[in-house]
Amino acid sequence: MGKNLTKRQDDYSKWYNELVVKADLAENSAVRGCMVIKPYGFAIWEKMQAELDRMFKETGHENAYFPLFVPKSLFEAEEKNAEGFAKECAVVTHYRLKNDEDNPGKLKVDPEAKLEEELVVRPTSEAIIWNTYKNWIQSYRDLPIKVNQWANVVRWEMRTRLFLRTAEFLWQEGHTAHATKEEALEETELMNNIYAEFAENFMAIPVVKGAKTESERFAGALETYCIEALMQDGKALQAGTSHFLGQNFAKAFDVKFATKEGGLEYVWATSWGVSTRLMGALIMTHSDDNGLVLPPNLAPIQVVIVPIYKGEEQLAQISEVASQLVSDLRANGVSVKYDDRDTQKPGWKFAQYELQGVPVRLALGPKDLEKGTVELARRDTLTKEFVKRDVVVDKVVALMTDIQNDLFDKAKNFRDEHITEVDSFEDFKKVLKEKGGFISAHWDGTAETETKIKELTKATIRCVPFNRKEESGACVLTGKPSEGRVLFAKAY
Amino acid sequence: MGKNLTKRQDDYSKWYNELVVKADLAENSAVRGCMVIKPYGFAIWEKMQAELDRMFKETGHENAYFPLFVPKSLFEAEEKNAEGFAKECAVVTHYRLKNDEDNPGKLKVDPEAKLEEELVVRPTSEAIIWNTYKNWIQSYRDLPIKVNQWANVVRWEMRTRLFLRTAEFLWQEGHTAHATKEEALEETELMNNIYAEFAENFMAIPVVKGAKTESERFAGALETYCIEALMQDGKALQAGTSHFLGQNFAKAFDVKFATKEGGLEYVWATSWGVSTRLMGALIMTHSDDNGLVLPPNLAPIQVVIVPIYKGEEQLAQISEVASQLVSDLRANGVSVKYDDRDTQKPGWKFAQYELQGVPVRLALGPKDLEKGTVELARRDTLTKEFVKRDVVVDKVVALMTDIQNDLFDKAKNFRDEHITEVDSFEDFKKVLKEKGGFISAHWDGTAETETKIKELTKATIRCVPFNRKEESGACVLTGKPSEGRVLFAKAY
Repeated sequence: MGKNLTKRQDDYSKWYNELVVKADLAENSAVRGCMVIKPYGFAIWEKMQAELDRMFKETGHENAYFPLFVPKSLFEAEEKNAEGFAKECAVVTHYRLKNDEDNPGKLKVDPEAKLEEELVVRPTSEAIIWNTYKNWIQSYRDLPIKVNQWANVVRWEMRTRLFLRTAEFLWQEGHTAHATKEEALEETELMNNIYAEFAENFMAIPVVKGAKTESERFAGALETYCIEALMQDGKALQAGTSHFLGQNFAKAFDVKFATKEGGLEYVWATSWGVSTRLMGALIMTHSDDNGLVLPPNLAPIQVVIVPIYKGEEQLAQISEVASQLVSDLRANGVSVKYDDRDTQKPGWKFAQYELQGVPVRLALGPKDLEKGTVELARRDTLTKEFVKRDVVVDKVVALMTDIQNDLFDKAKNFRDEHITEVDSFEDFKKVLKEKGGFISAHWDGTAETETKIKELTKATIRCVPFNRKEESGACVLTGKPSEGRVLFAKAY
Repeated sequence: MGKNLTKRQDDYSKWYNELVVKADLAENSAVRGCMVIKPYGFAIWEKMQAELDRMFKETGHENAYFPLFVPKSLFEAEEKNAEGFAKECAVVTHYRLKNDEDNPGKLKVDPEAKLEEELVVRPTSEAIIWNTYKNWIQSYRDLPIKVNQWANVVRWEMRTRLFLRTAEFLWQEGHTAHATKEEALEETELMNNIYAEFAENFMAIPVVKGAKTESERFAGALETYCIEALMQDGKALQAGTSHFLGQNFAKAFDVKFATKEGGLEYVWATSWGVSTRLMGALIMTHSDDNGLVLPPNLAPIQVVIVPIYKGEEQLAQISEVASQLVSDLRANGVSVKYDDRDTQKPGWKFAQYELQGVPVRLALGPKDLEKGTVELARRDTLTKEFVKRDVVVDKVVALMTDIQNDLFDKAKNFRDEHITEVDSFEDFKKVLKEKGGFISAHWDGTAETETKIKELTKATIRCVPFNRKEESGACVLTGKPSEGRVLFAKAY
């Protein structure tokens, strides 16, 4: 199986697409740009959801659900937001089909069932939610509101790629309302930090936290904070964003509250989201030419046990030992699958679980029974060893943490090695072409220069890192003064 | 608060609508027929989801995700299914908005962005899923497929009611594929049984299991099994359905598999679903004129503790005792909220938690501190008692089970008392008018008679109960022979 995968160095993009399909994560559907998330891929997404949901609730957020559709008149209320999404909106115009008299058995849109007002399939929910918050908020006592929703959204992208850019995707979108600017800014930062923690500690993906430049901000936001990850091909991937929306939506939807002091003020807003795009980040951070590599936290199956046997009797003996291992591992909180199917050979199974990124594989044959051993293979390092049966459970339990940490360290080393400081535009282009990764360079702070660099190199400013040094310098393109370095990269 | 609710006997429908809104469960949105599910309502739905998801997985089902949109040509492939849903389809015809030159700041549909093929917003996903399964199934080794998805669906209903009938609703839809008719029928029954177990044991809602008549079946199904519940106003509510689809979808999408014996056969299908409609069933089974009544299994807050105090010092003393109660209850798996807000009076809080159906309320005042007591109020019976502080935790833990069981028993008694056997059409009409509930009557088995009875009385056949006696009799309308009684009722 793994052998059939295109190698990363030959064609990274092809490797990615093949891996997604062959590892049973997702596939294209009959609907242009929309994907089917297959059970194995969805099980990984469910693990992400569960952990994020826990983190959101722990920080005082609640889930709710708002309509899929946004009436056009609400959609256009916040002009910048509307402008940003108008070009990629799926629009519902009719509410009925009828028999097509000219084509028996076929249906056609019933022209008499035209909607008075068109409905936009939500590309994001600020408009419908702030129109709702208007009725929820009268006084400072009603604030803050800290609501999240898990939902599907639609953005009509012309060039789509599984998980990375699809017309429909799954995400969570948090929408909070606050009495003060400070509180809203704190929330914006808190959620960006939660995303960073989640990416690093749960997904083993190192990220840079920072702020977007004006031209890269969410349409309608005053500030967009983000976490930026680096993929193995040297391209960056925006893994999560948290927006400070100021009073833009409150003004667009006339949402005011009576202050403690008796005044009347517009409400402050944030919104923040991560999506099934994280699946793409996961794949392109850890995987290799043999297929998917999963951190144990995200693995639907953490350990697989494969029996190697001839005949029923051997299988019975092996199964006895395997069953004990299964229950011991489960008692230790490790998820295990014992794959004793007789329809596939062990070699086929090995390749399949390697392709699907199961972190640890245990194999048990007649020799192992004799010697009291188990063959243990690590997916991340592709190493194998024989382990005494009486220590294998402890060993596997420890490996769950070790593999998780090792994957993070490996990815972090790669990322750190691929942040390159450059001070001339020649070097900028050279590094971008030959090495890739993040380029840390001075920038004069203007949108003009940013656009120019993008046109010349296809690199964009991924973020102004929060932890950057104060350092005056000269813009890498114009030579004009700069207050500090920003991170450029080509990006997904 | 509760006092402001319309009484059930005055206007059941108004009572329901008011309760949903005042208890913060859901509200109407700016989008015709679509609701906003508010955090408190959504927290109840999440508990339903978690339990159902656990039950599905325990019986070997996996989650996946399929596209929101169904291309028209796929939608119309299974004719009966298409016919059944065509009249209530939201249809996407365009993928872009543009500036409206005549109205600055407004947007309009871009006529140049018309889709070549219209997309139906899924009213149900058989079509898109079976078109996908076609690629997943080649051989008997690929079967069974047992997949579920949690999703939003849209059915353009003309008359909508919060939770009960909304244009968009949330649901789960299971779609399974099998090698044999027997296996598919077993699955259909299994899932109907799981729904019944869930309704009775988790939601405390007694249900009748049975089969739908042909005219009440899901469009495209050969059999529809269902669970039918009875609401307090004597109307029935279909709470879940499980469909045996035969080979209809396999034929429509040409899904065949190579059998073990080397043949080639069409695949057998089932689908099954429950939706946010269950929220309506929950409300109308247990609640009273004071508001929502929740079985402990579904209560986001199972116990609320309200301090009754004057001044900071008293509050501090009470809070010390309350904190200990909170941690003791949590240690026993009970979810507790300590509401020490100083912005609301105790009386207001009592009414609010009553309205929101919190199963147990504990109140702690200075006298309780002296006497070592706690005032305990049960939401379901509206009874109050003083309980010694050292036994209150045990008492509350026991109440969680007792209230759950009592609610079920109460609902079951009501339901059982409202199944009336009648043997004449006069009695049929009389019972329907004066008593309501299920009417158990003989029916001659024809769709004609069924329609006639519906026209005359608005009662439909809710199901042919699985546990009905073999009993020959005469049809209540036509006098023609019948093999057994079926259940009629007016229904939601």
